[in-house]
Amino acid sequence: MKFVKNDQTAVFAIGGLGEIGKNTYGIQFQDEIILIDAGIKFPEDELLGIDYVIPDYTYLVQNQDKIKGLFVTHGHEDHIGGIPYLLREINVPIYAGKLALGLIKNKLEEHGLLRHAKLHTYQEDDVIKFRKTSVTFFRTTHSIPDSYGVVVKTPPGNIVHTGDFKFDFTPVGEPANIAKMAEIGKEGVLCLLSDSTNSEVPGFTLSERVVGESINEIFSRVDGRLIFATFASNIHRLQQMVEGAVKHHRKIAVFGRSMEAAISIGRELGYIKAPEDTFIDAHQINRLPANEVTILCTGSQGEPMAALSRIANGTHRQIQIIPGDTVVFSSSPIPGNTVSVSRMINMLYRAGAEVIHGPLNNIHTSGHGGQEEQKLMLRLLRPKFFMPIHGEYRMQKEHTKLAEACDVDPENCFIMDNGDVLALGKDTASVTGKIPSGSVYVDGSGIGDIGNIVLRDRRILSEEGLVIVVVSINMKEFKIASGPDIISRGFVYMRESEDLINEAQKLVSSHINKIMERKTTQWSEIKNEITDTIAPFLFEKTKRRPMVLPIIMEV
Amino acid sequence: MKFVKNDQTAVFAIGGLGEIGKNTYGIQFQDEIILIDAGIKFPEDELLGIDYVIPDYTYLVQNQDKIKGLFVTHGHEDHIGGIPYLLREINVPIYAGKLALGLIKNKLEEHGLLRHAKLHTYQEDDVIKFRKTSVTFFRTTHSIPDSYGVVVKTPPGNIVHTGDFKFDFTPVGEPANIAKMAEIGKEGVLCLLSDSTNSEVPGFTLSERVVGESINEIFSRVDGRLIFATFASNIHRLQQMVEGAVKHHRKIAVFGRSMEAAISIGRELGYIKAPEDTFIDAHQINRLPANEVTILCTGSQGEPMAALSRIANGTHRQIQIIPGDTVVFSSSPIPGNTVSVSRMINMLYRAGAEVIHGPLNNIHTSGHGGQEEQKLMLRLLRPKFFMPIHGEYRMQKEHTKLAEACDVDPENCFIMDNGDVLALGKDTASVTGKIPSGSVYVDGSGIGDIGNIVLRDRRILSEEGLVIVVVSINMKEFKIASGPDIISRGFVYMRESEDLINEAQKLVSSHINKIMERKTTQWSEIKNEITDTIAPFLFEKTKRRPMVLPIIMEV
Repeated sequence: MKFVKNDQTAVFAIGGLGEIGKNTYGIQFQDEIILIDAGIKFPEDELLGIDYVIPDYTYLVQNQDKIKGLFVTHGHEDHIGGIPYLLREINVPIYAGKLALGLIKNKLEEHGLLRHAKLHTYQEDDVIKFRKTSVTFFRTTHSIPDSYGVVVKTPPGNIVHTGDFKFDFTPVGEPANIAKMAEIGKEGVLCLLSDSTNSEVPGFTLSERVVGESINEIFSRVDGRLIFATFASNIHRLQQMVEGAVKHHRKIAVFGRSMEAAISIGRELGYIKAPEDTFIDAHQINRLPANEVTILCTGSQGEPMAALSRIANGTHRQIQIIPGDTVVFSSSPIPGNTVSVSRMINMLYRAGAEVIHGPLNNIHTSGHGGQEEQKLMLRLLRPKFFMPIHGEYRMQKEHTKLAEACDVDPENCFIMDNGDVLALGKDTASVTGKIPSGSVYVDGSGIGDIGNIVLRDRRILSEEGLVIVVVSINMKEFKIASGPDIISRGFVYMRESEDLINEAQKLVSSHINKIMERKTTQWSEIKNEITDTIAPFLFEKTKRRPMVLPIIMEV
Repeated sequence: MKFVKNDQTAVFAIGGLGEIGKNTYGIQFQDEIILIDAGIKFPEDELLGIDYVIPDYTYLVQNQDKIKGLFVTHGHEDHIGGIPYLLREINVPIYAGKLALGLIKNKLEEHGLLRHAKLHTYQEDDVIKFRKTSVTFFRTTHSIPDSYGVVVKTPPGNIVHTGDFKFDFTPVGEPANIAKMAEIGKEGVLCLLSDSTNSEVPGFTLSERVVGESINEIFSRVDGRLIFATFASNIHRLQQMVEGAVKHHRKIAVFGRSMEAAISIGRELGYIKAPEDTFIDAHQINRLPANEVTILCTGSQGEPMAALSRIANGTHRQIQIIPGDTVVFSSSPIPGNTVSVSRMINMLYRAGAEVIHGPLNNIHTSGHGGQEEQKLMLRLLRPKFFMPIHGEYRMQKEHTKLAEACDVDPENCFIMDNGDVLALGKDTASVTGKIPSGSVYVDGSGIGDIGNIVLRDRRILSEEGLVIVVVSINMKEFKIASGPDIISRGFVYMRESEDLINEAQKLVSSHINKIMERKTTQWSEIKNEITDTIAPFLFEKTKRRPMVLPIIMEV
């Protein structure tokens, strides 16, 4: 790599810095690149119509011969969602924990990419050796089972990537391997890349076990049907819900594609344990008394097409809210979703359900550690250099303050952007270059074919609508052959605005006749004049600025 | 009113129930209607391009001869913003407190409606008498000075509307008149309409005084420039900021149209007090040392055109962030704005500013009382019937639980929707009818001309874009005279998708030729066939469903 010396290790990200999402990190020593995670990001509101955002993989494609493997920390979409898109370009070997690998297989199958994928499961104690570098792991706790931190050993020193983590001392699954972290710290950490998500949150996050107690308490006091909504990937939460249901003699019906997949994969791999007859089909719900029914569903974020939204607005085929129903939101709304979640809660109340939601009820906890947990990680690993990852700038900045409080030299902290290359020697570190790291938009089956011009047009169309002026011109005789016709969409309701449209039509018509007198054949000139005639007229009449699209047909 | 008996009082709202916004309440006894507030609502995200939402004023227009006056509780937009739209339809007399009246005058001036408006200031002790009803007031505390509750005395009994309130025992302005509330309660309240905004928030809200202490503490420890962003209408907050600046020998420069208006009106009416030389012009900022400068600006909600956004993204004409700047968000983001506020905080950090925000810093408090304050109001006023207002359904529902806990009979609580009419006798109450109460959209200068069809089109255009197929047809000879041309906007970037467009064009062209062979002159049939040909083709190629708009020109 041209930005680093031959005895230096390069650390970079093409996604995950200054943002939450599309985590994709690289650690390179000479001709060996270790990739960590390949995630997607869900689009922000102004990316109208975009389905996902993925990183620009240019650097990886250009250096594919050097990539030794993609090491996956855990199975969340912002860490594995990009794999099908990456694999379409370069078929790198993939190493993942048991659950993550199960989810990746599912995903590759859907994309028709499973057959050629090179998949490997790793265990915590595995050491995967390459010529100059090697990779090992340490178990962490997070909101999905089988979450790991990754240690990449390179000649200048060890690079540690925490993955997403919290310190849950009473987890539902395996505990974090604190002893191994301490050992890694003792052995020496040249640079720590650590999860910054909750660096603005003081203290320690709630244990998953406490959530289990709240769930059990709800099961013991509710008499009607229980409708339970959470993230499908939170297998521990699902297991706690299942335990509550079994203990209180309820059956479970599962709704939503991702929830069905999670339950099936969770049972298959042994993360979800329940007697055989615990799960029932949708049609069996109405045969049981209300106090023997649990409905487990997707849609806790207010996603309009998910099961819970359809239950709330009364369009679900199989489930209608009946008096006595209790809906539990075992989740907290992601910032962009607060309004739609709130609307759904209102609809459920109106439909007659009781709704349990919000932090006061201890029915959800974050998978990301708060400030004290981030400090514990820093104290265990004692890095020389520190790079806050997995967070917006404000979170990275706050995380850096925590590192400094834990005795990392302020000059050794690097708040980096996607694309920045950190060159690490045995005792030195500096940002020395930049690789391509833009955002690529996925819309339908198109990858990267939507750019700023299309998005700008979508924004104008969404706020102001469109006015089309179409005219056929006889270019031999310089006269209008047909039209001009005016058609609008998203601007005004045409049937009720006939006068406005007629007036605009007359205006344009007389202007085109004037243009014809000049006997011009410059179409772009004619189009500009049409726009310049009609746009100010429409603004004056409506105070709106629709997109104006003149179309000229030559006959 | 046909829904109530002659000896009953009708209570209704055409805005404000089941929502936060467009508060507009009516209390009617026989031929006397007392209106309380006339607000707007800011549109939710899916109302693409809409500026404001106002109520359907049909009932008020039809009964304008009965309306005795519009009584305004306080000067917030969701209580006064609808006045210009209402006054365009019916010129009712307006009664408001001093500050609210100042703000209303400003607003009517902008709309060119001030000259004919019938405006009256009221004081707390005024009694405004009509033939059968009368109106009195009680002072409350809220996030704007001069906030009042309204008592409407009607023959069946007294109806009390709290306005927006909290119980701030150490307010910056006048304290709430608890004694008068107790008296009103003792005299007897037939029905209480009470603010439900924070009915899900336990406890008591923070006093404005505590916020003042935090502001003062920030002034005493910050050395660089202080950039202070808050709601322009929060005059108490502005006064506390001004006091801090004066005490710490800083001058204040004001940015943003609404902030300039608030400072000017606040000083004029005596709510904001400061030595003459406290306020400076923008160009004077750079002549002063950093520790003598305060910048007071709008945009704390991340509004893209407001001063703070432009400062954050570096496009403000007069202010660039310099190292040492501290930005204070004396506000909390409204649910729909969390993402844009967060983005602005990131930009400010990146530009080198320190940023103080969030609830941990005690630099903001709500203007709406929590559960204990709502209970205090219920205990003071001791209503026979209760109607939670100013809140979404979930808040109304929670507020009802509080009323029941304060000994209101559960059967006497009415969670109503906009338009519902509550008929109140001396000892009876029931919902007996419904008046028109829809939403009217304001977009540019258009009021109510945007409906569901236009909004549906805007949504499709925003997510999938548009494909236009335009063709000139010689209807005498049944052949294509010109085209078909394909034009798209917001769908794909046409220069990079030439192949797709060419292929689509060929497909449509050959299909139109087939249609021509049938010698049909049914345009709608031709149009449908064009759509049915091209839409599946585009979906197959792109997995997107753009709006398809066929245009046929007859020549």
